[in-house]
Amino acid sequence: MHFDKQKIQSAERIFRLNLINAITGIKPANLIGTISQNGQTNLAVFSSVMHLGSNPALLGFILRPQKDARRHTYENILETQYYTINHIHQKFVEQAHYTSAKFEKEESEFAQCKLTEEYLFHFKAPFVKESSLKIGLSLQQTIPIELNDTIIVIGQVEHIVATDKIVSKNGYIDLEGSETVGISGLNTYYTFQKRYEFPYARTSELPYF
Amino acid sequence: MHFDKQKIQSAERIFRLNLINAITGIKPANLIGTISQNGQTNLAVFSSVMHLGSNPALLGFILRPQKDARRHTYENILETQYYTINHIHQKFVEQAHYTSAKFEKEESEFAQCKLTEEYLFHFKAPFVKESSLKIGLSLQQTIPIELNDTIIVIGQVEHIVATDKIVSKNGYIDLEGSETVGISGLNTYYTFQKRYEFPYARTSELPYF
Repeated sequence: MHFDKQKIQSAERIFRLNLINAITGIKPANLIGTISQNGQTNLAVFSSVMHLGSNPALLGFILRPQKDARRHTYENILETQYYTINHIHQKFVEQAHYTSAKFEKEESEFAQCKLTEEYLFHFKAPFVKESSLKIGLSLQQTIPIELNDTIIVIGQVEHIVATDKIVSKNGYIDLEGSETVGISGLNTYYTFQKRYEFPYARTSELPYF
Repeated sequence: MHFDKQKIQSAERIFRLNLINAITGIKPANLIGTISQNGQTNLAVFSSVMHLGSNPALLGFILRPQKDARRHTYENILETQYYTINHIHQKFVEQAHYTSAKFEKEESEFAQCKLTEEYLFHFKAPFVKESSLKIGLSLQQTIPIELNDTIIVIGQVEHIVATDKIVSKNGYIDLEGSETVGISGLNTYYTFQKRYEFPYARTSELPYF
């Protein structure tokens, strides 16, 4: 199967959306929790959360400001400067998916999708109580990508809250035991099996392939 | 378990690296293939490839220019303007991992790690023959993130090459059947099981949670 640029551009819109959203491989499944200055909460599923650096601990995610659901997240982050990123697990994957429906700003996806707001350490933004790994972040920078009107939102990790068994003593996270899920394309969810763990790669210690 | 910013910053370095590299959830596993103007090829594993948009089809990835292995990738992309992104599958995951060792610029990771250069459609950069889903991209923009000296590299999709059975007629990609892998942290690899497929979420069609 071969698609060149012209064939991609002339493909049927939904086919192209599905294909291009899937070609990077598996994507992480996270819920971003926010609150407006007048106390209205919002929760939205994102598959674009990425690691940017460990020291300082910086995470990014991509948003399209023109889409309704995403706009509430962005407006709240700009208002309060804080947000949370929460892993999605099997037990609430359907509820998490439906946070992508276009609810009105005065409707909280927490209530609509039966997920629970949790406030910890006097942190401004709501965590998702049902999640086994939750991160509180403070906004550091927004970078517009003019090529297609998206925005990269960068935050610093202020808090990490995890159930004990999910984090090993060397800092590894058990994505299989925690039943964390990942996203392919726009609406397919996968679970994981841990298969390989390799050492830090050194040219002096290459295996015999 | 709770880590606040101070506890993260004062944590032992390797623990922090492992933890912060893993907290975003699963990451896609891809090999980026490049060639220098004088014909020296390079191949490097990346877990930061992300979807930026479908029309035009844009993908991004993050790199740290100061790291040796990553620098060769970046130098080659700047020289030729072209690169490939190739899914990593179970059958060659160990070879793919070892492309992260710090080989000299005149040593190609293709040869060192026993993976095969493939040249298709007169595209400048080498694809990975062993991969079931390969993407050829043209450089569009590099965006420096000054907060921590990383760079976002953005490319437009010029070619998608896939084995027939991996792409469905609606554009979905079968990450389980293709034995594509994902990365947690720096060196743990997971395989996937497809578990859920939900419709486009509409507020008028909420399930009963």
